Amino acid sequence: MDHRTPSQPSKTALTRFSVAPLSTMTRRLADVASGRAPADLVITGARVLSTYSERIAPEREIWIAGGRIAAVKSAGSHRQVKGTPGRVYDAKGGIIAPGLVDPHIHIESSMITACAYAEAALLNGTTTIFCDSHEIGNVMDAAGIEMMLEDARHAPLSIFLTVPSTVPATSPELETAGGDLTPEKIAALFDSWPEAAALGEKMDFVPVTMGDERSHAILAAALERGKPISGHIYGREFVAAYAASGVTDTHEAIDRDIADDLLDAGVWIFLRGGPPTTPWHSLPEAIKTITELGSSHKRICVCTDDRDADDLMMFGMDWVTREARRAGMSREQAWSMGSLHPATRFAMEGEIGGLGGGRRADVVLLNDELEVQNTWYGGELVVENKRITPVLDGALSNRYRYPDEAYRTVHIPQVPKLIPELPTESCTANVIRVALPGIVLFHDKVQLDKEESWEALLSKNDLTFVTVIERHGRTGGVAHGLLKDFGLKSGAVASSVGHDSHNVIVAGTNEADMRVALDTLIEAQGGVCLVDGGKVVAMVALPIAGLLSDKRVTEVAAETQALKAAWERAGCKIPYMGFNLIPLSVIPEIRITDKGLVLVPEMELVPLYEG
Amino acid sequence: MDHRTPSQPSKTALTRFSVAPLSTMTRRLADVASGRAPADLVITGARVLSTYSERIAPEREIWIAGGRIAAVKSAGSHRQVKGTPGRVYDAKGGIIAPGLVDPHIHIESSMITACAYAEAALLNGTTTIFCDSHEIGNVMDAAGIEMMLEDARHAPLSIFLTVPSTVPATSPELETAGGDLTPEKIAALFDSWPEAAALGEKMDFVPVTMGDERSHAILAAALERGKPISGHIYGREFVAAYAASGVTDTHEAIDRDIADDLLDAGVWIFLRGGPPTTPWHSLPEAIKTITELGSSHKRICVCTDDRDADDLMMFGMDWVTREARRAGMSREQAWSMGSLHPATRFAMEGEIGGLGGGRRADVVLLNDELEVQNTWYGGELVVENKRITPVLDGALSNRYRYPDEAYRTVHIPQVPKLIPELPTESCTANVIRVALPGIVLFHDKVQLDKEESWEALLSKNDLTFVTVIERHGRTGGVAHGLLKDFGLKSGAVASSVGHDSHNVIVAGTNEADMRVALDTLIEAQGGVCLVDGGKVVAMVALPIAGLLSDKRVTEVAAETQALKAAWERAGCKIPYMGFNLIPLSVIPEIRITDKGLVLVPEMELVPLYEG
Repeated sequence: MDHRTPSQPSKTALTRFSVAPLSTMTRRLADVASGRAPADLVITGARVLSTYSERIAPEREIWIAGGRIAAVKSAGSHRQVKGTPGRVYDAKGGIIAPGLVDPHIHIESSMITACAYAEAALLNGTTTIFCDSHEIGNVMDAAGIEMMLEDARHAPLSIFLTVPSTVPATSPELETAGGDLTPEKIAALFDSWPEAAALGEKMDFVPVTMGDERSHAILAAALERGKPISGHIYGREFVAAYAASGVTDTHEAIDRDIADDLLDAGVWIFLRGGPPTTPWHSLPEAIKTITELGSSHKRICVCTDDRDADDLMMFGMDWVTREARRAGMSREQAWSMGSLHPATRFAMEGEIGGLGGGRRADVVLLNDELEVQNTWYGGELVVENKRITPVLDGALSNRYRYPDEAYRTVHIPQVPKLIPELPTESCTANVIRVALPGIVLFHDKVQLDKEESWEALLSKNDLTFVTVIERHGRTGGVAHGLLKDFGLKSGAVASSVGHDSHNVIVAGTNEADMRVALDTLIEAQGGVCLVDGGKVVAMVALPIAGLLSDKRVTEVAAETQALKAAWERAGCKIPYMGFNLIPLSVIPEIRITDKGLVLVPEMELVPLYEG
Repeated sequence: MDHRTPSQPSKTALTRFSVAPLSTMTRRLADVASGRAPADLVITGARVLSTYSERIAPEREIWIAGGRIAAVKSAGSHRQVKGTPGRVYDAKGGIIAPGLVDPHIHIESSMITACAYAEAALLNGTTTIFCDSHEIGNVMDAAGIEMMLEDARHAPLSIFLTVPSTVPATSPELETAGGDLTPEKIAALFDSWPEAAALGEKMDFVPVTMGDERSHAILAAALERGKPISGHIYGREFVAAYAASGVTDTHEAIDRDIADDLLDAGVWIFLRGGPPTTPWHSLPEAIKTITELGSSHKRICVCTDDRDADDLMMFGMDWVTREARRAGMSREQAWSMGSLHPATRFAMEGEIGGLGGGRRADVVLLNDELEVQNTWYGGELVVENKRITPVLDGALSNRYRYPDEAYRTVHIPQVPKLIPELPTESCTANVIRVALPGIVLFHDKVQLDKEESWEALLSKNDLTFVTVIERHGRTGGVAHGLLKDFGLKSGAVASSVGHDSHNVIVAGTNEADMRVALDTLIEAQGGVCLVDGGKVVAMVALPIAGLLSDKRVTEVAAETQALKAAWERAGCKIPYMGFNLIPLSVIPEIRITDKGLVLVPEMELVPLYEG
């Protein structure tokens, strides 16, 4: 495997390397903490939330030097020290707490780069994230993951990798992916990138529990290196074998009982909060292992997992933490579940997750409702009164640029026929029926009578064309299917985000608009668009790997909102996030990939038309 | 530095290597947990204490394969699996819990080898210890530490090293040690021995907080390698600077308020339990940070630190855990503080500390009072009904033998004069006054009148001779002093355990008996003995480094009890453990080393006689 060499940290940019390693700073911190030298920054007058003891202490101040915490003292203590601090920041009335640590997210879900993600994270009081970049891995293999690691090294945010473990999601028989992360490639990622902190969510929990050889070789690559393994599991019957395989966290505990089983099997629980109207919001149920069954909360964290760009600001880690409080935790417990506990889970509690001596000065100022007012990242004020500061604005304007090859990933040299043949006589079709919330798709068998045109057939049966086109330049494959109840009134929608292999998916009422939509994505080398009457009505361009915009989060959020509005106006019954999941051949009952229609429980292909 | 190469694990002996790494066992464990293959061992019918959720579940059974935990199931579940388990063990009525993890101990305090220590540990339900072998480091430098690591590799116990950080304890001006652990030697120990899990207690907390260069170079050697640092601190005024220097645990929180300060400074608290009549028993005070001040217990552990061999069985980790319960914790919390919390502190909770899937099958069977009935070490039954099994007895009979050089460490080629000159005219003497419990020694100035004999002078002033003889073959130095109120009626006592440099200390009422005592120790190459009328009355021989017996713990415990009884009969007012501390030049007020009398607060030498 040909490796990208990790870049050397810049001396001037605001990144996680701006703060020197503790090993080089202990004498200076001892000087400041002992009062022999003044602090660079004193944040004074606030209460302080200790994630260690889970108490809030009144009228404290925090001394910061070189971007690290030297001491927490009684308010005003700095006045007894010889010398003047670089800055004294009055935080009276607020609560000082450590920055949040998100233990499980996919940046690609927000369709932005790591640098762009930092803006939203810091506004939400999040200063560290553990991200699993398996989407870009599915498109560009290890090379894409390494580009995103470079991106992360340039971001004003502490970003650690949980190495994608399940790429491709299924097998080459069922779909064509751009990536194939073998145990050897995964081992090489661990060995080359110190920020590779864990193995990412091992989604193929059934093969794992069945003892699949490749799956276990991947687990072994992590365990041999002392790296923990993140999980993803449904079904209480699988818990014991999955835990015995070495998996020690999950964010997919969707109810109280499985959360309880997993906890007692030694698995850390990441309670996932998502927008409350979505099925991702499993926190309120899973937290009942604490509030109803009396479990200790000490091995329970909160996380976000996935967010649309426009949801990032409303439903960030701070919001999830507040949801934990709303579900019955104290403020101190809830904030710990969003900071110290994830830090402890990844054995980084000596560096982040609390306001202890020597830790990074990743600090937030909260109001009594745990709403983030200010964020200091490594001692640098990056958010003040809920707005980014000029320092952060400067850092964000100077984002990492992905290599040119990342901008050339939609390889469709010849546009194929985008709709199936009109049945020449009546037949039964294997149809994908969509329904809210859009996660599970249903397998309907629809009787198609002989008609003179597709128009008549579609309208009579509430059907829409759906086509998946291989875009990794491997097979040139294309598969046709039919969606039932999709609701699109006219035109076409298309996306180069088609989980997990990210082939291009196009749905439409007519081939002409479908072709315009596909051409638009090829031209932009990625995106999600809506076309009607031959014209692009709305679009988010995603030129990086066909997955990511290269714009700032605010711009992408605005584009996403416009797309969602147009999407709804066009009549689509499931949101575009659900549309992107139509090729995801691991969720029941039926999916469509570039190889054809996949029956998920059977893991086999079926033809569109039968007898 | 010339390194010992760590030995390869034996294939047959019962050691921590008997259980294969999880990375090689996940498929087998998944098979067993899924019921596709029978377990090697099923322990059935007991309640199960979860250190994760802190609850006790009724009627469970635990499936073990290859020395690891495959699953915890409802009692009787194994009967639904095809195939017969290797063994089914009925544990009805008891509580199954993980083996204890002692986060801070010094094996040398028990004057036995690591292999011998294992016997006592397993009887106490302790299956993992983190030991700091700084005593042998003070005698034999890194070579001695590496011998003890070899010893540990051969023991039926999981022994990790916290690398001694403060050898010598003070400076060559104040005492002559056999070891000098420079930052470079400490770094080399980390790099050669994977079991070097942390830096050991950084006892020189004042130099650390003052920014001392060597001390901080040692801290850096650990931090650069991602190793946590264990601490040892008194005095609330030092807490902030000590924590800012990177120290993240302490076992010296002797009261509620300093425990509280340390906890909020990000330091893990190890509550130390010792025999209740000793000052080492600080748990009942320090635990009040939880029980009185409302701190979370999640970063609080229990530990033993030091134990006389004969106290090991009465006051082990299980007893300390029960003390935590007596002080107000629930059974589940107390046991977690003795198992999962230490495992988490050292980032090993994926391997030990709980009964999660894939963990080592280090398991105990308890009664309702948390008294250990059985211990399984890596799935092997080593203690049953409070007695060791033949398997363990066999393992203990085949102990590691230290290299010959470890048996030759008392280098006193010429026995010097052992008592000071009789004052030729009246003068003032700087005298060491002893008092119970024997930790702090007091500096008295005693007026000595001109007398015709020492006998008269000693008896008139309640004095005893005390002499320290350098034994590392470096200087041949000797220093004379006088003890007040020591109480020895006649004869002499001597010890080659003289903290921390472990020169030989002899005290007596007459030079003849002192000489016999010293000769006895030279002959045995180490020990503690009591002599009267020219005859040895009691002795524990410590031929390994002058610190350790090579016998089993039961034998050493019996010898220690006999010595203690003789010691008391001889009239000594402080116990022999206190006697061994007389040269420890870091505890106030006055000490005697091979260099002379040391005033501790001033860190300077004073003559025996003044003007």
